[in-house]
Order: sequence, then structure tokens, then C-alpha cells
Amino acid sequence: MIEIPSDATRELVRIRYGETDRMGHAYYANYLFWFEQARGAWCRDRGFDYKDLEDMGVMLPVVEAHVRYKGEILYDDVIEIAVWVSEIKRAALRFDYAVFRQGESLLLTDGYTWHVTMGTERKAISVPPHVREMMQRPRII
Amino acid sequence: MIEIPSDATRELVRIRYGETDRMGHAYYANYLFWFEQARGAWCRDRGFDYKDLEDMGVMLPVVEAHVRYKGEILYDDVIEIAVWVSEIKRAALRFDYAVFRQGESLLLTDGYTWHVTMGTERKAISVPPHVREMMQRPRII
Amino acid sequence: MIEIPSDATRELVRIRYGETDRMGHAYYANYLFWFEQARGAWCRDRGFDYKDLEDMGVMLPVVEAHVRYKGEILYDDVIEIAVWVSEIKRAALRFDYAVFRQGESLLLTDGYTWHVTMGTERKAISVPPHVREMMQRPRII
Amino acid sequence: MIEIPSDATRELVRIRYGETDRMGHAYYANYLFWFEQARGAWCRDRGFDYKDLEDMGVMLPVVEAHVRYKGEILYDDVIEIAVWVSEIKRAALRFDYAVFRQGESLLLTDGYTWHVTMGTERKAISVPPHVREMMQRPRII
Repeated sequence: MIEIPSDATRELVRIRYGETDRMGHAYYANYLFWFEQARGAWCRDRGFDYKDLEDMGVMLPVVEAHVRYKGEILYDDVIEIAVWVSEIKRAALRFDYAVFRQGESLLLTDGYTWHVTMGTERKAISVPPHVREMMQRPRII
Repeated sequence: MIEIPSDATRELVRIRYGETDRMGHAYYANYLFWFEQARGAWCRDRGFDYKDLEDMGVMLPVVEAHVRYKGEILYDDVIEIAVWVSEIKRAALRFDYAVFRQGESLLLTDGYTWHVTMGTERKAISVPPHVREMMQRPRII
Repeated sequence: MIEIPSDATRELVRIRYGETDRMGHAYYANYLFWFEQARGAWCRDRGFDYKDLEDMGVMLPVVEAHVRYKGEILYDDVIEIAVWVSEIKRAALRFDYAVFRQGESLLLTDGYTWHVTMGTERKAISVPPHVREMMQRPRII
Repeated sequence: MIEIPSDATRELVRIRYGETDRMGHAYYANYLFWFEQARGAWCRDRGFDYKDLEDMGVMLPVVEAHVRYKGEILYDDVIEIAVWVSEIKRAALRFDYAVFRQGESLLLTDGYTWHVTMGTERKAISVPPHVREMMQRPRII
């Protein structure tokens, strides 16, 4: 059983025709686009935009991604992605994801992504204190 | 009847599963990825890489795209894209494309893209003489 | 000047990070995904889903696409796509698109797509009367 | 240290402009498209096409994907993907991947995907004997 924190962000995505494949399913790579969209919503729910981080000179490139596809997602399905920060280390942080069909409780997909903090020199840096604060904020919206 | 210049570049692309849609066809947006891949090959056939242009401070963003889809393209098909520069104006140039199944002569798709020359200030500029020379080169490979 | 019919559908799209390219713009192929999303919204505004058509045995594959890119669209921009049916012929119909940044009136992109009606035999058919009625409906939502 | 079997398939991919993002890197979701392309090449190296499996009524949908991004992949880079089947269970099998820049030995990315065998009823089935034989074949090309 997956434990979704109460202040997780919930992002809705309607599946595009071009995101399906000839098997009729949503193609497996596209979930990573939706996860990224959900991370953007997670930031906005905490009062900032992901691009604010980049404007401050901090990028969060993905260094690891994991997805478990448990149920089919089809064209025009509206999915709800729960997203939360599950861990913050010295120089890395992890987002977790759980995907449901809107209004349903059956887990369709789960996954996580690990991100490092990268500075303007394109080198890994420790998570700066102001970024750590932003990533630990409760949902304010 | 489409007239393909004898020094057009020919680029092969094998269609990915993720480029199809639930209708079983290659999804219509993906052709524009293949056209871009063909433009890159066109440059290499003339002795430079597209990114050399960007390194010289010249970008060629697309300002117009047109595609006519005449025949089905399916998963795992190997298509051949003929690509050539059909027109160069003061501050813009046009690539044309014709798509066939490898080894066949039936035209499956044709199209064109118009590009402007954009400088490092992110403003449109006249095609610089050295870029004009590069875009008028015959195929050397 | 582009004339947008008063009952055009308006669909909002927030640009994903993965839809940008190294130039920092939204990549030119992705607009065709957004146009498709807008067509889906157009159908819903008229009381049906695009997949209802497919369930009735009618598909609307794209046979021609045209896009004019006039203004930059960037990461996290929220764009509004106006979409409407501009022409219905015996066996084909055309959607038109106009793209703005949300709340702004400057036209960023326009375009159109031509679609044929294809039956379950994967052959072009005349637009069936009930489909013609659906495609001529005024917006009801 | 990653152990690549001697009969792994090696597939080359040149990175498209549209596969990069505004950070200048290849976007993290696109690796899953390249992995799929590499699986197709793996099949051809063993004398069949992936779509032959589907024509026989067997699909191999992905049920789990894992990617570790270790080094940057940029526009126009030519990458070499080593791909092999690392495990076959009763009703599932796993592909492993290792990605290098062409001609270099530094590991840029590794990953794996788990697939179930799905029959024409869209239900999981045991790996049929003839499919097991195909997936255990040595490279013949």
C-alpha cells in the first residue's frame, strides 16, 4: 500500500491521442512528461514556479527515474497524479508519484525520480538553504 | 509530380513504436521530428553540422511548416526522406521534403518548412554571407 | 487579421519542460499535439468525445497540416488555443487554430488541419450525415 | 561495473534537436524511446521483428522501467545503446541497457525494463515456448 501524504499535490492530465501507441495504451515514456508536469504543479502549490529555481541559478536535473505500470491508461482518460517530495539529502532530493484515474482509488502507476541540485557552473552543488526551505514547504494553495 | 533535385540528401528513419498512435499510424506531429533529423543530415552532407551554425551565433527557427500526409506510415516502416533547400530569401530560407517507404517510389508525404535567420540577440537578421554560402553548397558527401 | 468565430472553443495548455528545446523555445512539432488536444476540447464543447466518433466507426486522420509560428512560446507559458471548424466538404473537413498567451491578444501562432473521414475498412468515405451534424453543432457548453 | 554480455545488440541513435530541452540536455523521457528502438534492433539481430511477435498474438507491454542518468547527452550526440535480455521468468522478461557516446567507454546511462507477455485477450499469459525460444536466441547477425 502506498502512503500518500496529506499535503501531496494532485495534478490532472487528459491523455492525448499522440500519447497513445498502436497497442492502444499510453506509451510508457509519456508518463515521465506527466510526472514533470506534476512537479511543476507541486511548486506552484508552494508559492513558486520551477523556473524561479532556474532563475536563481539552481537546476534539478533527473539522475534516476523509476516507474511501475500497473494498470492501463488509455486515450482521453483523465488521470490524477499525486506528487510529493519524499526525501531530501545533502545534494539530492526525491519526488514520488502515484497515478489514478480521476475519481477512482485503484493505483494505476507509481514511481519516483531522484534529482540533484546543479548550479550555474553545471556542477552538482549542495542543496542551498533557500532551496531546501522551498522544497520543505507545506502546500499553501 | 514533385521534382526532387539530384543533390537532395536522403535520410532513413525507422518508425518507433512510441511514434505510432492508437489508430496504428505514425502520429502526424512526429513527421516534424523526422524532417528536422533530415535537415541535420542535409548539413552533414555539405560538410558541417547544424550546431556549427548555432556555434557561429546563427539559429534557424521554423516560422512556417506544411505537411501533406498522403499514405500511411506504420510501426517499423523504414522511410526515406529526401530533403533540399528550395529557396533562399534575404532573411529566410525554405527546406522541402518528400517521404517514401525505403526502396519504393510512391510519395507518402511531402512538406516544407520556412526558417528565419536569428542572431545572438534573438532578433531576425539577414542571412549572413557565410551562412548563405553554406546553404547553397552542393552535396559533397 | 484572423477572424475567430464567436463559438470557437478555447483550450488552455501549460507548456511542459520536455516540450522545449535547447533554443529555449517550445519545439515546433509539439504545437500539433496541442492542436489535437484543442480538437478534443472542441468535441466536448459540442456534447461528444472524439473517441465517440471512433466508436461509431469513423476516424478523422489528418491529411494536411499547416502552422505559422509568429511569436515565441516558452516553458511554463499558458497558451490559449482558439479552435473551430472552418470548412466541411463532401469527404473532408478543416479545423483552424489561433494561439495566444493566456489573457493576451497578440497572435502567436495560427494554423489549420485538414481531415478526411475514414471508415472501418480504413478507406476514405463521405462524411456520414450524423457526423456532419455533429461537426456543424454550435457550442453547447 | 556493468557487465555487458558479448552478444548484446548495439544500436546507434543520433539525438534530435526536438529531444533536447531548454537546459540543453536530452530530456529524460526520451531515453525510453531510444530503449524501445534498441529492443527492436535486438529482435532483428535474432532474426525476427518485434511486430512478428504481435502478429503471433503476443505483446510485451512494459510493466516497470528504471533509468540512471549519469552523464549528459546533448544535441547531435551519437549514442550507442547496448541491450540484452537479462532475465526470463514464467510470465515476464527483462531487458537491460547501457548507453555510451559512440566510440567511448564512459557509461552515460543504464537502465532496465520489465515486460509481461500479454495475449490477444489483453491478459497476462505465460511466456509461450516459441516466444521463450526467440527471446533466448543468440545474436545471429
